[in-house]
Amino acid sequence: MGKQLHLISDGNFTKQHLQIIKQIHRDIDFLHIREKKKTAKEIMEIIEALESIEIPLAKVIVNDRADIAVMKQCAGVQLAYHSPSMPLVKKCFSALLTGKSVHSLLEAEQAQQEGADYVLYGHLYPSRSKPGQQPRGLADLREITNVLSVPVYAIGGITPERTKEVMKAGAAGAAVMSGIWKVDNPVQTVEAYREVLDTWEGG
Amino acid sequence: MGKQLHLISDGNFTKQHLQIIKQIHRDIDFLHIREKKKTAKEIMEIIEALESIEIPLAKVIVNDRADIAVMKQCAGVQLAYHSPSMPLVKKCFSALLTGKSVHSLLEAEQAQQEGADYVLYGHLYPSRSKPGQQPRGLADLREITNVLSVPVYAIGGITPERTKEVMKAGAAGAAVMSGIWKVDNPVQTVEAYREVLDTWEGG
Repeated sequence: MGKQLHLISDGNFTKQHLQIIKQIHRDIDFLHIREKKKTAKEIMEIIEALESIEIPLAKVIVNDRADIAVMKQCAGVQLAYHSPSMPLVKKCFSALLTGKSVHSLLEAEQAQQEGADYVLYGHLYPSRSKPGQQPRGLADLREITNVLSVPVYAIGGITPERTKEVMKAGAAGAAVMSGIWKVDNPVQTVEAYREVLDTWEGG
Repeated sequence: MGKQLHLISDGNFTKQHLQIIKQIHRDIDFLHIREKKKTAKEIMEIIEALESIEIPLAKVIVNDRADIAVMKQCAGVQLAYHSPSMPLVKKCFSALLTGKSVHSLLEAEQAQQEGADYVLYGHLYPSRSKPGQQPRGLADLREITNVLSVPVYAIGGITPERTKEVMKAGAAGAAVMSGIWKVDNPVQTVEAYREVLDTWEGG
């Protein structure tokens, strides 16, 4: 399977985000709707706005809310520490792709054991989204990708320039927030990520 | 069908609430878990705590989160303005009893048309939970119960003493928050509600 690029919404979804998505969605594998402060109604309105510009919802992963993912026939649900438990989500909503956000080898192993289809591991580098928090680094990522059999996507400060070393550490792809939302030219930036991911010939 | 008593959690669920529920659950028809500031994980922990003291989850209605209601096999889900849309919830989670919180005849009619199994209408009297907001009153309740065919439960400042006039206005029951949580003797208070509801002989 090719290396993936996941785009994570930054908690402040606006029409500008929609415009960026419209331009780049063909080059991303999954779009995560991660809008913790928004209500269910608002999240569903975002998904309907995506539908209206013909973004395939089979590319959309909803944070925390399995019900919204089911109702809107999205690809899956991303669970965090504060979310419903993985085993129950897998049991009751087995059609959903179910990812878990993890921050250590222990959490990653547990998520896999509980049935996670993939894990999102981070944050890897110092990141604008997590100021003041200690990044995990490539050695820890390598350890996790060595142990896990499910795909590990890395998140946190991954630029196109860093993407190669992240893949080298065994990641199945990169997940990006400000690396796409906050750059001057998102189209060009996504192409730069894609270039590294698509030409990767390692494991 | 007998008149019902719904107990609504007050957004600040603690062990004290659990103790009260343990004493009164046989006399209430439904317990709504309405904890807007809590995470999904925390809400599931509350439901598991209810299970551990043998409260039948067939009496539990979860606010907003259909996924939690499905996963924990609760009775149903209570939708508010900020919740997923009624038609989608009914379509995808048809096993759930699905209620809607409404504040006008227009909202009530729309909820029924969209498939609501019942509506929760309020607030009826000046209520500690809604300081400064204008109560709706019995005439408005009567108008709604005349028009709707689904059960209308009234909420907001309903005491045992007021329960009879609320039933007289056509309500299918009363929903209570501080009227049970904040009183000195919840057991006695619930019995007082029950007495009025169970001896009601009107329509």
